[in-house]
Amino acid sequence: MEFSSKLLERAVNEISQLPGIGKRTALRLALHLLRQPKEQAAFLTEALISMRNDIKSCRECHNISDHDICEICSDSRRNRSIICVVEDIRDVMAIENTGQFRGLYHVLGGKISPVDGIGPSQLNVTTLVEKVRGGNVQELIFALSPTMEGDTTNFYIYRQIKDFEIVTSTIARGIAVGDELEYADEVTLGRSILQRVPFENSLKNN
Amino acid sequence: MEFSSKLLERAVNEISQLPGIGKRTALRLALHLLRQPKEQAAFLTEALISMRNDIKSCRECHNISDHDICEICSDSRRNRSIICVVEDIRDVMAIENTGQFRGLYHVLGGKISPVDGIGPSQLNVTTLVEKVRGGNVQELIFALSPTMEGDTTNFYIYRQIKDFEIVTSTIARGIAVGDELEYADEVTLGRSILQRVPFENSLKNN
Repeated sequence: MEFSSKLLERAVNEISQLPGIGKRTALRLALHLLRQPKEQAAFLTEALISMRNDIKSCRECHNISDHDICEICSDSRRNRSIICVVEDIRDVMAIENTGQFRGLYHVLGGKISPVDGIGPSQLNVTTLVEKVRGGNVQELIFALSPTMEGDTTNFYIYRQIKDFEIVTSTIARGIAVGDELEYADEVTLGRSILQRVPFENSLKNN
Repeated sequence: MEFSSKLLERAVNEISQLPGIGKRTALRLALHLLRQPKEQAAFLTEALISMRNDIKSCRECHNISDHDICEICSDSRRNRSIICVVEDIRDVMAIENTGQFRGLYHVLGGKISPVDGIGPSQLNVTTLVEKVRGGNVQELIFALSPTMEGDTTNFYIYRQIKDFEIVTSTIARGIAVGDELEYADEVTLGRSILQRVPFENSLKNN
């Protein structure tokens, strides 16, 4: 690409550093910003700057927060004895949207993945084990993605906390509500049969 | 979407104002920026700010430039008697990439489109007519997208300059009707400039 402006070229290069955004898309976005009033473009850059500089990680659960302790951890109505372990804050948002969980979270910040060079030391595992050691936790729910990396991470954490007197569980893996059985993959369908639940339970949960 | 941080929510809202970027993608981009070092995020915002505030429109051809006169218009080796009329600066970049054109450009800033509320007065038509009236222009190449709006714009300009003694041409229709100019491959686009046809011929062929 030949640019008639170094300023434009620099902006396009920076935008195309973002994941999933190529040079053409970056150019389209840059030209869009140029057509906007200066104030509009300033709203975007100010929002990005203050987000990057002022956002905090919750001291308790590592969720993203505007305060030292996030709104969930500081909510006295929530059950502090159940902790749901998730990969990242998008999972917290997804579970919060269901309205089905009233405990606390623990955000690992990823999952163990040797291919990507991510080991346990890069994840928030130590603080989780300390929480369990503290004695106030009764149940740990593993809510990681049902992939090999997720299973590995679950197991790594499980080995460290299995000697404490707590219940550990994983979110149910099975056929999505509303999905046709015939389109489900074999592994999921097989597991949903092996880990079948009493029919009465399925009625209660709806 | 429930956000645990107002700063994050604001950033996601601003990012999702960009064309073609929904809330989920905006969240993914925001979280990516949060994982980057602060300097890296600052590179992006600084590039956007200086682009938006300092970029200029070339006084001669309305191309985007870092100076009052763009590099193309101030290049003494270029043929100043041929002007290629294009919709926007992406088209200038696309034609420059072919290496087939050594004249100057005139960026209209869009095309006549009643549906989008864009009339001739919002385009850089007056300065183009003045250039032709100046007497130094021998040929005008219409290189707008071969769409109805492009043809309308060509014809609007043609009516204003047809009494001057200049050659008018359009780029050859090697480009599929309805396709956007910027997505054409270099060979086709380059050839379409070399094989431009008199404007009157293009009217006959429709």
